[in-house]
Amino acid sequence: MSEISKIVLAYSGGLDTSVAIAWLKEKFNAEVVTVTVDVGQKEDFKEIEERAYKAGASKHYLIDAKEEFVEKYIKPAILANALYEDAYPLGTALARPLIGEKVVEIAKKEGADAVAHGATSKGNDQIRFESAFKALAPEIKIIAPIRMWGMTRKEEVEFARKRGIPISETSSKYSIDENLWSRSIEGGELEDPWNEPPKDAFEWVTVPEDAPNEVLELTLEFEKGIPIAVNGKKMKLIDIINYLNDLVGKYGYGIIDHMENRVVGLKSREVYEAPAALAIINMKKDLEKIVLNKREYRVKRNMDFQWADLVYEGLWFDPIRVELSKFAEMMNENVNGEVKAKIYKGSFRVVGRRSPNAIYDKAITSYDSNWFPSDEMARGFIDAWLMDSIVSYRKRYL
Amino acid sequence: MSEISKIVLAYSGGLDTSVAIAWLKEKFNAEVVTVTVDVGQKEDFKEIEERAYKAGASKHYLIDAKEEFVEKYIKPAILANALYEDAYPLGTALARPLIGEKVVEIAKKEGADAVAHGATSKGNDQIRFESAFKALAPEIKIIAPIRMWGMTRKEEVEFARKRGIPISETSSKYSIDENLWSRSIEGGELEDPWNEPPKDAFEWVTVPEDAPNEVLELTLEFEKGIPIAVNGKKMKLIDIINYLNDLVGKYGYGIIDHMENRVVGLKSREVYEAPAALAIINMKKDLEKIVLNKREYRVKRNMDFQWADLVYEGLWFDPIRVELSKFAEMMNENVNGEVKAKIYKGSFRVVGRRSPNAIYDKAITSYDSNWFPSDEMARGFIDAWLMDSIVSYRKRYL
Amino acid sequence: MSEISKIVLAYSGGLDTSVAIAWLKEKFNAEVVTVTVDVGQKEDFKEIEERAYKAGASKHYLIDAKEEFVEKYIKPAILANALYEDAYPLGTALARPLIGEKVVEIAKKEGADAVAHGATSKGNDQIRFESAFKALAPEIKIIAPIRMWGMTRKEEVEFARKRGIPISETSSKYSIDENLWSRSIEGGELEDPWNEPPKDAFEWVTVPEDAPNEVLELTLEFEKGIPIAVNGKKMKLIDIINYLNDLVGKYGYGIIDHMENRVVGLKSREVYEAPAALAIINMKKDLEKIVLNKREYRVKRNMDFQWADLVYEGLWFDPIRVELSKFAEMMNENVNGEVKAKIYKGSFRVVGRRSPNAIYDKAITSYDSNWFPSDEMARGFIDAWLMDSIVSYRKRYL
Amino acid sequence: MSEISKIVLAYSGGLDTSVAIAWLKEKFNAEVVTVTVDVGQKEDFKEIEERAYKAGASKHYLIDAKEEFVEKYIKPAILANALYEDAYPLGTALARPLIGEKVVEIAKKEGADAVAHGATSKGNDQIRFESAFKALAPEIKIIAPIRMWGMTRKEEVEFARKRGIPISETSSKYSIDENLWSRSIEGGELEDPWNEPPKDAFEWVTVPEDAPNEVLELTLEFEKGIPIAVNGKKMKLIDIINYLNDLVGKYGYGIIDHMENRVVGLKSREVYEAPAALAIINMKKDLEKIVLNKREYRVKRNMDFQWADLVYEGLWFDPIRVELSKFAEMMNENVNGEVKAKIYKGSFRVVGRRSPNAIYDKAITSYDSNWFPSDEMARGFIDAWLMDSIVSYRKRYL
Repeated sequence: MSEISKIVLAYSGGLDTSVAIAWLKEKFNAEVVTVTVDVGQKEDFKEIEERAYKAGASKHYLIDAKEEFVEKYIKPAILANALYEDAYPLGTALARPLIGEKVVEIAKKEGADAVAHGATSKGNDQIRFESAFKALAPEIKIIAPIRMWGMTRKEEVEFARKRGIPISETSSKYSIDENLWSRSIEGGELEDPWNEPPKDAFEWVTVPEDAPNEVLELTLEFEKGIPIAVNGKKMKLIDIINYLNDLVGKYGYGIIDHMENRVVGLKSREVYEAPAALAIINMKKDLEKIVLNKREYRVKRNMDFQWADLVYEGLWFDPIRVELSKFAEMMNENVNGEVKAKIYKGSFRVVGRRSPNAIYDKAITSYDSNWFPSDEMARGFIDAWLMDSIVSYRKRYL
Repeated sequence: MSEISKIVLAYSGGLDTSVAIAWLKEKFNAEVVTVTVDVGQKEDFKEIEERAYKAGASKHYLIDAKEEFVEKYIKPAILANALYEDAYPLGTALARPLIGEKVVEIAKKEGADAVAHGATSKGNDQIRFESAFKALAPEIKIIAPIRMWGMTRKEEVEFARKRGIPISETSSKYSIDENLWSRSIEGGELEDPWNEPPKDAFEWVTVPEDAPNEVLELTLEFEKGIPIAVNGKKMKLIDIINYLNDLVGKYGYGIIDHMENRVVGLKSREVYEAPAALAIINMKKDLEKIVLNKREYRVKRNMDFQWADLVYEGLWFDPIRVELSKFAEMMNENVNGEVKAKIYKGSFRVVGRRSPNAIYDKAITSYDSNWFPSDEMARGFIDAWLMDSIVSYRKRYL
Repeated sequence: MSEISKIVLAYSGGLDTSVAIAWLKEKFNAEVVTVTVDVGQKEDFKEIEERAYKAGASKHYLIDAKEEFVEKYIKPAILANALYEDAYPLGTALARPLIGEKVVEIAKKEGADAVAHGATSKGNDQIRFESAFKALAPEIKIIAPIRMWGMTRKEEVEFARKRGIPISETSSKYSIDENLWSRSIEGGELEDPWNEPPKDAFEWVTVPEDAPNEVLELTLEFEKGIPIAVNGKKMKLIDIINYLNDLVGKYGYGIIDHMENRVVGLKSREVYEAPAALAIINMKKDLEKIVLNKREYRVKRNMDFQWADLVYEGLWFDPIRVELSKFAEMMNENVNGEVKAKIYKGSFRVVGRRSPNAIYDKAITSYDSNWFPSDEMARGFIDAWLMDSIVSYRKRYL
Repeated sequence: MSEISKIVLAYSGGLDTSVAIAWLKEKFNAEVVTVTVDVGQKEDFKEIEERAYKAGASKHYLIDAKEEFVEKYIKPAILANALYEDAYPLGTALARPLIGEKVVEIAKKEGADAVAHGATSKGNDQIRFESAFKALAPEIKIIAPIRMWGMTRKEEVEFARKRGIPISETSSKYSIDENLWSRSIEGGELEDPWNEPPKDAFEWVTVPEDAPNEVLELTLEFEKGIPIAVNGKKMKLIDIINYLNDLVGKYGYGIIDHMENRVVGLKSREVYEAPAALAIINMKKDLEKIVLNKREYRVKRNMDFQWADLVYEGLWFDPIRVELSKFAEMMNENVNGEVKAKIYKGSFRVVGRRSPNAIYDKAITSYDSNWFPSDEMARGFIDAWLMDSIVSYRKRYL
C-alpha cells in the first residue's frame, strides 16, 4: 500500500480519530487531511481543529452540514416516522452517510488516494461510512485504522501522549455520539442491561423527577408531514428541532432505553436522548391517523418499518431506500394540520388533532347522528365479512 | 318471525339493553332471558339483576367469567403484544366473543330460538357478538334490537319510563365499556378530536398533574411471556391485572387517545384507560428484545399486528386467529425474566431487563472486550452486505 | 322511489341486463338509457344495440374504451405484475371500474337520477361497479335489478319472451366475461372443482394437445416495464395484447384454473384464458429479476400482491391503490430490455433476458473470474451474518 | 495452526474436494477423513471412495442420508411451499445443513480438530455448511481450502495430476449439484443470461419438443400437506419423489431458469431441474386454496416466502426457521385431499382438486343456488366495505 500519499479522515475530535491522524501518517507515510462535519453536535470546533493540527493533520476542514442534514436526512426520516425497532430515531445512522459524502467531496477536491473513518469492526457505523464511500467514490481506497491497529484504549492514550496529541477531556465514562436528531449513550455500566442509566448519562433530558412542576402544552403544525410551526409560531425545521430538543427535554421527555439488534449479529443496550425527534414523530403519527385511511395506514406502517431498517443497516445508498423515501413523501402529501400534546415531568400525551384533510367525519361516526345502516344492511355486511371465517372455523373445530 | 318464543339477550344493564328486554318481549311476544357476564366491569350486579326483572326478563343469569377472560382471551393478547393500531389493547374486542359464547351456552341450555345483543349498526361490537353466535350456534336466530327499532336516545328514555323500567343513573355523558383489560370512553365532546378529554372522562387513571409526587418502581417477572410476579411477589395473572390497574393508574400512566379505524369504514376518536395492559405489554415487548433475535423480532412484530387486527375486526373465530395465537405462544416460550420500570406522574420508562434466556452477550458486544473481527473480516462482511446496493445504486443514479 | 325518471344502465347485451331494461322501465316507470362499453369483448355491438332498443331502451350508447382500458387500467396492472392469488390477471376486475366511470359520464350528460348494473349479490362485480358510482357521483342513486327481482334464470327467460326481448343465442353453458386482458369462464360443471374443464370452455386457447407441433420463439422488448415490441417489431400495447392473445393462445398457453377467494366470503372455482396477460407478466417478472436488486425485489413482490388484492376487492378508487400504482411505476423506471421465451404445446419457458440496466455482472459472479473475497473476508461475512442465529439457536436448542 | 491433526472434509468426489484432500494434508500436516453424504445424487459412490483414498484420505465414510433428507428437510420445504424467489425449490440449500450435520457427527466420533468444506468465497454454500458447523460444534475449527489456496481450475488440475489424484471424467462444462430434490446447473455459457440453456445441460428433464406425444394424467393425494399416493397408489415420500422425478421429467416438465439473488450481494443465472419438487409444490399450493380461507392463504403466503428466504440464506439453524416450520406444519393440518394435473410436452396444468376439508361450498357459491343476500344486505356490505375508500378518495382527488 506504499502508493497512498494522501488520506482524508472523517475526524470527530475524539481519542480514536485523533490517534488515527498520527497513526495513518506514520503507517502510510502519507499526508492526512481531516474533515469535521457539523451535524449539530455540541462541540468546540476551534479546539477540534487545533487538536487535528497538533496530531499531524496537514489540513483541516470544518463543514457546516446542519441544514443539509435536516433537508436531506431528517426530513425523509420524519416522513417515514423512522424509529428503528420501534425505538431509535436513527440520529447517528442518518448522519453517517452525510459525513461519508462530505469526506468523499473533500477527497476528490484534494485528490486523495484514500478515505478513512474511526469506526470499529463490530459496530454499525463502519457500514454506514463505507456505503457512502463505495457508492460515491468506488475508486478511492478505504482505511479503517481502528480496525487495523489492535490497540486498547490504554495503549491509544499512551500512543497519543508520546506524540503530544491532546486528548479530549470528556470523562469518557460512556461512548457518546451526538447530532441534531439524537444523542446516543453507550458503554460503561450501561452494558449491563439490568442497570438503570444513571442521571449523569443524560445531557439533553432532565429526568422526570427533576423536571419543572408544570405542564407544557405543545402544538405542532405540519405541512405535508413536516413540522412548520410550534405553538402557532412558524419556524424553520432546524429551528424547531433545536427548540424542541431544549424545551421538551427540559420537561423530562425524550429518553429511550432498549436492547438493539445491530447489523453485525450482536445485540447491544442502547440509551438515547431525542426529545425533538420523539415529539415530532409521535405527533405526526397521530396526525396520520386522521388523514390516512385504514388501508393506507397499514401499508405505510409496514413500509416505514422497512425504511428504518434499511437506514439503520447502512443501506442509505440502496435504491430501495430512495424509492421508499419517495413513497413516504407521497403518503405525506395530505398530512397537514395540527396536533397538540401535553408534556409533564416526562409524560407525553397527544390530546387533540385536526386537519383540513381529515377523513374523519363526526356526522357519520357520532352515535347522535341519525345516519345508521339498517338492520338488514348490517346483516349483509356481517354475513359477507364473516362468512369464510365461520365456514372454515366450523369445518375445523366443531 | 312469529315462531320465536324464547330469546337470550346479552344484558349489560344499560339503557339500550334494558329497553331491549321490553321491546323484544312486545315485538316478538317472546320470553326474554338475560345474561350478564362479569368480565371485570365495576358494576352493582344485584341492581342489574333487579333492573332486568323490572324490564320484563323471565330469568336472569349472572356469569362470572373473569378467570376465563384472563385465561382464554387476555393471555393470548399478552403473548401477541396486542395493541390495535399501535394503541388500543383491545379490552372490549376481547370480551365480546366471550360474552357471545356465554350467551350461546345459556341459549342452548334454555332451548331458546334466538339470541340478541345491544350493539348498533355502525360499531364493531355487532360483528364480534355475531361471530360468536354464528360460529357456535349457526342454527339460532340473531336479533339486534338497537339496529331495528330506530329510536333516538330520548325516545328510548320515554319508552322506558312508560313501562317503568329503571334507568341507570350514570350521567351518560360518555359511552363507556369496561372490563379487566381496559375502559373505553367514547362520545360526547370527545367526538371532536381536537377537544382534550376532560378529567371527568377518567376513572382508572389519575391525570399526571394530580398523581403522587413519587416514583413508582415496578418490576414484573415473566414466564413464557406471561407476568407471574410483581416486585418479587408471585401473584395470579388476574390479581396482577387488578393490582396494576390500581397502582399504575394511580401514578398517572395508562391513558390512550387516538383516531381509530373501525371495521365498518369509519374513523372514530377513542379514549381508553388501560394501566395494567399498557404496563404489561410494554414491559414484555422490552423483554422480548433481549430474548428474541433480530429475525424473530421482525417476524413476530408483523404477526402481532395481524393478530390485533383480526381480533379488533371481530375475527376471533377465524382459524387464522387461532393459528397466530399458537404461533405467538411458541414465540414466547423463552420470554422469561424480569423487567423494571419507573412510573412517575404519567411518565413510564423501562430502566432494566434481564433474562436467563437472553441472547445478549456483554462479552461479545462490549467495546472493552478483546474480541473484534479483523479489518479484513470486517471488509468481507461490508463487501457482501453492500454489494448489490452499491452496484444497483451506481448503475441507477451515477 | 317514484322520483326516478331516468336510469343509465351498464348494458352487456346478455340475458340479465336485457331483462333489466324492461324491468327497470316497468318498476320505476322511468326512461332507461343503455351504455355498452367496448373493452375488447368479441361481440356484435350492432346486435347488442338492437337488443337494447327492443327491450325498451330510450337511447343506447356504445363507447369504445379499449385504448383507455389499456392506458389507464392494463398498464398499471402490468407494472404491478398483477396476478390475484398468484393466478388471475384481473381482466374483469380492471374493466368494471372503467365501465362504471363511463356509465357515470353518460348519467351526468343525460341528467339521469340513477345508474344501474347487472351484478348479483354474491359476486365481486357489484362492489367494483358501485365503487366507481360512489366515488364519481355519490349523489346519483344506484339500482341493482338482479339483486332486487329474485327471478330464476327460467323466470327471466319467460319474462323476456313475454315482452319480445330477443335473447342472446350463446348457449350459456357457462357464465362468461371477456375483455382484452382475460376471458373468464364460470358456472355449469366447472362449479365442481374436481371436474376438468371441458374443451368447449375455451375460446382463446387451443388446448396443448391440439396446439401446433412447433416451437414458438417469442421475444418481448420492454420499456419502463411496458412491452413495446414483439420479436423485434415495435407495436402499440393494445396491438401487442391482441397479437399475443391470438398467437400465444394458439400455441396452447394461457389457461388458468384455480379456487379463488371472493370478497364476499365465498370461494369459487374460476377458469380463465389470458395468453397475452400471462406471457407479458411472466416475462416482465423475469426481466425485473435482472434489473432490481434483492431488497427491491422483495419489497415490490409484497406491494404487488397488495395491489392485486385491492383491485380484485373493488378498491380501485381507494387512495392506496393510486399510491401503490405510483410506487409500481417508480419501480419500473429501469425495467428495460428483452426477454425471450419458448412456447410449445402449452409449455412456457423463459430462456434468456438482457437489459441495459441489468445489475448482474458476469465478471463478478463467474467462477472463472479472478475476483474472489479472501478466506478471511468470507469468514468475516459469515460470522456477522450468522452470529445472532447461532447464539440464539445454541441458547435455545442445545 | 500447527495444532490441527485431524480434519473431516465434506467430500463430493469432484475436482475441488479431491484436490482439497491432498492440499489439507500437506498444508496442515494432518490426517484427512472424508465424508460423502448420499442425498440422492446419482453418483458411483464406490469410485468416489477410491478417489478419496487415492488423494490421501486416511478414512472414508459414505453416509446414506436420503431418508433423513426427506424427513427432516424436504418435508418442511413442502409444507412451506418453498420456492426461493418464486422459482427455486432449494435442493442444494436444503442438503447443505444436513451434510454439515453429518460432517460434525463424524468429526466428533473421530475426535477431529477441524472440519472442512469445498465451497468458494462467493457462493451461498459456505454459509450453509458453516452454519451447521457453528451451530452444532462451535469448538471445532472450520477450514475452507478453496477459499484459501487461490488456484485456478487449471492449476488445480495440474496439482491433482502431479499427485496422481484421479479426476472425475465428467466434462465439467457446467458446475452441477444434485440431490433428490433438484439438480442445479451453473456456469459455462449459462453465465450469459441471454443464452438459452443448451439441451446438454439437462439430465432429468426431456426438453418439451422431445417429450412423448401423450398426456400424463397425474393425481397426487396429500395428507397434512405431504403427498402419500400417486394415481391412487400409496407410496413413501422418497419413492414418490424418485418416481415423479423420472415420470414428470420424462414428460418435459421441471425446468427452472432465472436470475437469482445470492446472499453475498451477487446475482447469478441459475438453471435447475426439479420435476418432482415443482409438481408436488404446485399441486399442493392448489390444494391449499380449497382448504385454507382467504386470511390464512395470505398469511401463509407471506410466511412461506420468509421460510424460503431463510433456508436459501443459510439460516437453517436460526430459531425463526424452526418456528416458521412449526407454523407451516400447523397450517397444513387440514391440507388433505387429491389434486389432478395434466402434463404434456412440458406443459403443466392442474385440472381438478377435492378435499374432505374443503371450505368451498358449491351450494353457497353457485349461481343456480337459491341463496342470495338481499339487495339491502348487499348494499350494507358494499357501504361498509367501501366507505373509507370513497370518503378518502373524494377528499383527495375530487
